[in-house]
Amino acid sequence: MDLPALVDHHCHGVLREGPEERGAFEALLTEADAPPAPGTSYFDTQLGFAVRRWCAPALGLPAHAPPEAYLARRRALGTAEVTRRLLRAAGIGAFLVDTGLPGPLLGPEELAAAGDGQAREVVRLETLAERAAATADSADAFLGALDEALAQAARTAVAFKSVAAYRHGLHLAPAPPAPAELWPAADRWLSGGDRARLTDPVLLRHLLWSAARTGLPLQLHTGFGDPDLRLHHADPALLTDFLRAVRPTGCRVVLLHGYPYHRTAGYLAAAYPHVYADVGLALSHTGARAEAVLAEMLELTPFGKLLFSTDAYGLPELYLVGSRLFRDALGRVLGTAVAEGAWSPADAPRVAALIASGNARRLYRLGREG
Amino acid sequence: MDLPALVDHHCHGVLREGPEERGAFEALLTEADAPPAPGTSYFDTQLGFAVRRWCAPALGLPAHAPPEAYLARRRALGTAEVTRRLLRAAGIGAFLVDTGLPGPLLGPEELAAAGDGQAREVVRLETLAERAAATADSADAFLGALDEALAQAARTAVAFKSVAAYRHGLHLAPAPPAPAELWPAADRWLSGGDRARLTDPVLLRHLLWSAARTGLPLQLHTGFGDPDLRLHHADPALLTDFLRAVRPTGCRVVLLHGYPYHRTAGYLAAAYPHVYADVGLALSHTGARAEAVLAEMLELTPFGKLLFSTDAYGLPELYLVGSRLFRDALGRVLGTAVAEGAWSPADAPRVAALIASGNARRLYRLGREG
Amino acid sequence: MDLPALVDHHCHGVLREGPEERGAFEALLTEADAPPAPGTSYFDTQLGFAVRRWCAPALGLPAHAPPEAYLARRRALGTAEVTRRLLRAAGIGAFLVDTGLPGPLLGPEELAAAGDGQAREVVRLETLAERAAATADSADAFLGALDEALAQAARTAVAFKSVAAYRHGLHLAPAPPAPAELWPAADRWLSGGDRARLTDPVLLRHLLWSAARTGLPLQLHTGFGDPDLRLHHADPALLTDFLRAVRPTGCRVVLLHGYPYHRTAGYLAAAYPHVYADVGLALSHTGARAEAVLAEMLELTPFGKLLFSTDAYGLPELYLVGSRLFRDALGRVLGTAVAEGAWSPADAPRVAALIASGNARRLYRLGREG
Repeated sequence: MDLPALVDHHCHGVLREGPEERGAFEALLTEADAPPAPGTSYFDTQLGFAVRRWCAPALGLPAHAPPEAYLARRRALGTAEVTRRLLRAAGIGAFLVDTGLPGPLLGPEELAAAGDGQAREVVRLETLAERAAATADSADAFLGALDEALAQAARTAVAFKSVAAYRHGLHLAPAPPAPAELWPAADRWLSGGDRARLTDPVLLRHLLWSAARTGLPLQLHTGFGDPDLRLHHADPALLTDFLRAVRPTGCRVVLLHGYPYHRTAGYLAAAYPHVYADVGLALSHTGARAEAVLAEMLELTPFGKLLFSTDAYGLPELYLVGSRLFRDALGRVLGTAVAEGAWSPADAPRVAALIASGNARRLYRLGREG
Repeated sequence: MDLPALVDHHCHGVLREGPEERGAFEALLTEADAPPAPGTSYFDTQLGFAVRRWCAPALGLPAHAPPEAYLARRRALGTAEVTRRLLRAAGIGAFLVDTGLPGPLLGPEELAAAGDGQAREVVRLETLAERAAATADSADAFLGALDEALAQAARTAVAFKSVAAYRHGLHLAPAPPAPAELWPAADRWLSGGDRARLTDPVLLRHLLWSAARTGLPLQLHTGFGDPDLRLHHADPALLTDFLRAVRPTGCRVVLLHGYPYHRTAGYLAAAYPHVYADVGLALSHTGARAEAVLAEMLELTPFGKLLFSTDAYGLPELYLVGSRLFRDALGRVLGTAVAEGAWSPADAPRVAALIASGNARRLYRLGREG
Repeated sequence: MDLPALVDHHCHGVLREGPEERGAFEALLTEADAPPAPGTSYFDTQLGFAVRRWCAPALGLPAHAPPEAYLARRRALGTAEVTRRLLRAAGIGAFLVDTGLPGPLLGPEELAAAGDGQAREVVRLETLAERAAATADSADAFLGALDEALAQAARTAVAFKSVAAYRHGLHLAPAPPAPAELWPAADRWLSGGDRARLTDPVLLRHLLWSAARTGLPLQLHTGFGDPDLRLHHADPALLTDFLRAVRPTGCRVVLLHGYPYHRTAGYLAAAYPHVYADVGLALSHTGARAEAVLAEMLELTPFGKLLFSTDAYGLPELYLVGSRLFRDALGRVLGTAVAEGAWSPADAPRVAALIASGNARRLYRLGREG
């Protein structure tokens, strides 16, 4: 199916150099924080197989080249060339980059240049707060600096993003914190907490509500991810009361990933006009099963509410894999619906274009393509 | 696959007139309580596409006629003719109508006449209680009037139905309320609550137990629905202790809809002899995916325990869509099982007839068809 | 697809004699604890259909022979011959038998002899504790006897197994109980509890941690099963904190079954190097849908982490059904992935062999086959 250039509405930088070694490469193929179990490899996953399938040919190897051959080819070409080849093959026209992750990563403009697309920034709320806390000597100073940082970010970013699901879980009190909660929470964090890692639920709520009031869309991590989350605390259904409370502000909320609660995310996008859902991680990590997972997302999610992203991080492979799995899965799901007569031949490409780019362009006010 | 006339064991009235305008029509295509997000339409959903696919031909238009053409044709034919055509095309022989929703709707007999079927009533417990409360001047008067209304309803209705999932959530205490809980709860509601909307968990439990003691099947909403529920509070697994507690009464419990917890509903129907499951909303709202969702329901649910319904409300389109999606999905799921050799060619139509009508006729004691 | 002889890493004994009567046979086709609902039969389930499909031919009848004909043939052949035929047809090379269930069952060696395979024992922790409690006259005596029984079991068993999901639910405190908790809990159980059924959460945690410290893999029931569990309390996500806490001990944890939370089990196996997942009950009880369920398990579960089991109990039919459904489903899932180009033709049989036996041989240190 012909698609317009994709808008990747949630992604991250890739490494400036490397990784050279197999272990370092494998570590970026998984959400785990440790080497694989003895006798196993992170290449032996749906994502690992998808990398060999889609990326080996882009580097001039046969599809499914073995891991060692692939990594050798990667080293021979050099990081810049590998990045350029994989990103260009992804066909992404706009990269909305969450810049809140640390590391020697390409910035949004560099990424977009390598991929021949345009870049915009998504600002991670917890990172803003951690930066504001780093030098603050009082709750007043911290909250003031945070306010200022939020206002400044809102002038250029296209969205805010929160990882409250990791830091606390989504079972947050739905209302904005009262001042009588907020200042003591800030005091506690500054005096006793790890300023490099915000986990206080009052401060997390303050971030969500501060972002909501800017009028920018708010991206929320939901569903699976790193092993520092409790999966059942990342069920987007837990956000229901927050979604209701924030609705009058006009804030539009994007539920990222969602898997294995992606059907719940679809329900929320169907039930609330200001809620959107995303494919994200759920496709890259399920590989050969991306069609099945995408089809489940297309059960309840209104077709004007589903967004494409790769959630790529570290490896440019994740851009190409995310993009190719999405295109392929979307073509199959919609092709099946048309072949069975359930959808009309005219609706299918229209809906495909919405999910590939139109919904994101409307939501983030990116303007027309080109 | 040839099926007997369907028993729609859970449905609602349709509008006497209209809707005329696109906005009003779209509002009945969604469980949301608000206009669609800017730039989107509730026609751009699986349900919207299914309406265009199945209902346009029944009104003399090509399948997938555009929404405006469809609505124009609808207006030209007039509500009565549209209703008659769509209902007759649905092939439903018996309508078990939940009469607890307000609005200018056709009553069960009118609906059945339009659809050339038979009608029976399902009585919504919360509506009975709200009617009894409307004029009661004391807890005694309220509880007495409610008892009487329940007894009277039990003489003619085929089942009771509860929307406790919406009003409180399914995490109710499992036991019947003691008198020392019940009277104070009634007092509180009558003196301070909104008598038009029962949400007190003690009174909701009283309704469930009162219904259970009548010997009629008890239909419980589970899974997705209006935005006034919290989806995770509508997980049918939350009913486990209630199901165990109510089992000795002989009450048979029907778990409606269930999606996205329909596999859990199937487990409960497999684990407890007195529990049944339903397809309901889960098929209409997933459209082209109805086959996949029905197949999931047929994993654990014993074949003598699954029931067909449309949960249609407001629009006669929902009867035709629910019926056609069900027939089509069932034919595909069972056809695949036979083609792969997993099921015998003789079992498939036997099981299909059970789900289409036999299970409901046995459960609700409707007698043989015809 | 050619597979090596299977390792059934979690199974149970089968009846020495019978069952003769249809009711007794049906009772072993279901997890329910009661006769089927009036007008229904446990043969009318995916498992019932799978038994008729796969087992009737192994007994010399046509596939899908009716239940009465099947049971008559079974009686004519006699239990020993039926058991031998069904077990041999299953192609299982190693049986890891949970010996903690009561009843007139074949022991591991008898089972393996009938099936022409090898047997190893999996020791059920709660049964060990109940045996130790039966004759203990003090907490000291009980805990000492339990320690000794654990140490002795660890010398010969290949794994421990817990049914804490049934007895309490998986929402256990993650840490090992302190002595100040443990002795009083033992006292309470011995003085007031049912010594034949351990449900105390402190003692259940003590069992888990005691097993973890032996270095043997720990199998945990998760997901659906008997009606004495609350399904949402068997969600493996509830184990997250325990999994983190136990990780430094080196204990490897196997999440059994998981359905309908099998995708969550796959996430945990992906996120934590010491966690494994299993197909178990989820295939036998979903029958014609085993391919779909297995495909979902293969979304996130690393291919070196998924294990085959039948969870067979009572009926030898469950060995053949579990084995055939698994082989068939695996062949289809992997065949589809290869046909679509998503997996290479060389990877598919390699991964199939891992799931069929290699992963279990590595995890349980069974040595090479043959």
